[in-house]
Amino acid sequence: MTLTVFTFDWLPEFPRGFVRDLRVRWILEELGRPYRVDTFPAHPKSQRHHDMQPFAQVPVVQDDDLTLFESGAILMHLGEGTALLPVTKRAEVTQWLFAALNTVELSVMHWVNMVLAERVPEFFGPAPAVEVVAHARQEMEAKLEALQDAIADKAWLAGNFSIADIAMVEVLRVVEAEDALRGFPILVAYVDRATSRPAFQKAMADHMQHWHAADTAQAAATTA
Amino acid sequence: MTLTVFTFDWLPEFPRGFVRDLRVRWILEELGRPYRVDTFPAHPKSQRHHDMQPFAQVPVVQDDDLTLFESGAILMHLGEGTALLPVTKRAEVTQWLFAALNTVELSVMHWVNMVLAERVPEFFGPAPAVEVVAHARQEMEAKLEALQDAIADKAWLAGNFSIADIAMVEVLRVVEAEDALRGFPILVAYVDRATSRPAFQKAMADHMQHWHAADTAQAAATTA
Repeated sequence: MTLTVFTFDWLPEFPRGFVRDLRVRWILEELGRPYRVDTFPAHPKSQRHHDMQPFAQVPVVQDDDLTLFESGAILMHLGEGTALLPVTKRAEVTQWLFAALNTVELSVMHWVNMVLAERVPEFFGPAPAVEVVAHARQEMEAKLEALQDAIADKAWLAGNFSIADIAMVEVLRVVEAEDALRGFPILVAYVDRATSRPAFQKAMADHMQHWHAADTAQAAATTA
Repeated sequence: MTLTVFTFDWLPEFPRGFVRDLRVRWILEELGRPYRVDTFPAHPKSQRHHDMQPFAQVPVVQDDDLTLFESGAILMHLGEGTALLPVTKRAEVTQWLFAALNTVELSVMHWVNMVLAERVPEFFGPAPAVEVVAHARQEMEAKLEALQDAIADKAWLAGNFSIADIAMVEVLRVVEAEDALRGFPILVAYVDRATSRPAFQKAMADHMQHWHAADTAQAAATTA
């Protein structure tokens, strides 16, 4: 059976390019695995969505009779037994996967949630004071500095390109989009190296095409 | 070779009981695996620490010739092939492990960092305004509500007790310590169920004993 990736039916402009179905599209392109896309309504959330994903987030994948959520777990499941999660590098790749999705992302999102509150308070709540945001940025930059040191002599986090790089680059792209990665040239080069891979390019094109198609469908429905 | 768990040599009162070596001690007690403890100076951080853990965090474990950091990866490595990460439940347990260390912990730490800033600004920076903290709490409570629904009919997240429960309970204990779990009786019962396990009790006792011994050593050094 073809694997199914679930994302939202439509979203406003600001999260496009960063919705987490992209991580799953990326690994599937790296692996050359075909997939179909299904959707959940973004608002209001559906019962079907809650039944498949308790936090009503995306992505969710269906792979035969397995339904799976959490992009980290999906990367591990799909990467299993492939060059993206080699058995001989399992512990090291997993270590960097958690470094991306826990250590680095915790500190990135603590700051990014504050920055987004300045722009999109209806989603992210009232904006914190300048000195609060500055402290969160400083904490994040300490993590980025350490990460930069760790990959200074390496192309990828754990030997060859792996699922850990997909996760880490997706976290760093958020920092880059907020124009906060420039002080870390090694990380900028790392992100460029990863996002110039054909698999990323294809995944991103399909991801953006999904939202364009959703806009068109919505426009058609409005004028119908 | 006996496994080694690295933690800090000494820490002030406030993080004791929550330092992440506890997660590793807990799984090792569940598995009945003996271990020794080694330490890094908390301040200033040592070169050895940076060499073994790029972010200079704890825990780190040494298991024969493998050095591993990130508590999520350590739980997977140690759980592998045991009842705490059964092969037949691998995807499901991993999914809940990432739910704990990404979805839930991201939202918990966003709030907890703000609350701790009110109490320990020298570590956590200036405290955000009341309405900022309130919004972060609301976001966290939405996640806790969803988690509570998800385990309402279950003793544990994925069948029997697993590494996902160790991670999730360790995240929830932080919420409980800030007196913010009371509105979620099913989660309180879940945490109680987990922390009444003999393996947790032993791990916590040894964890606290480590800090007491560090206090004693420090006091002896001061008066020497």
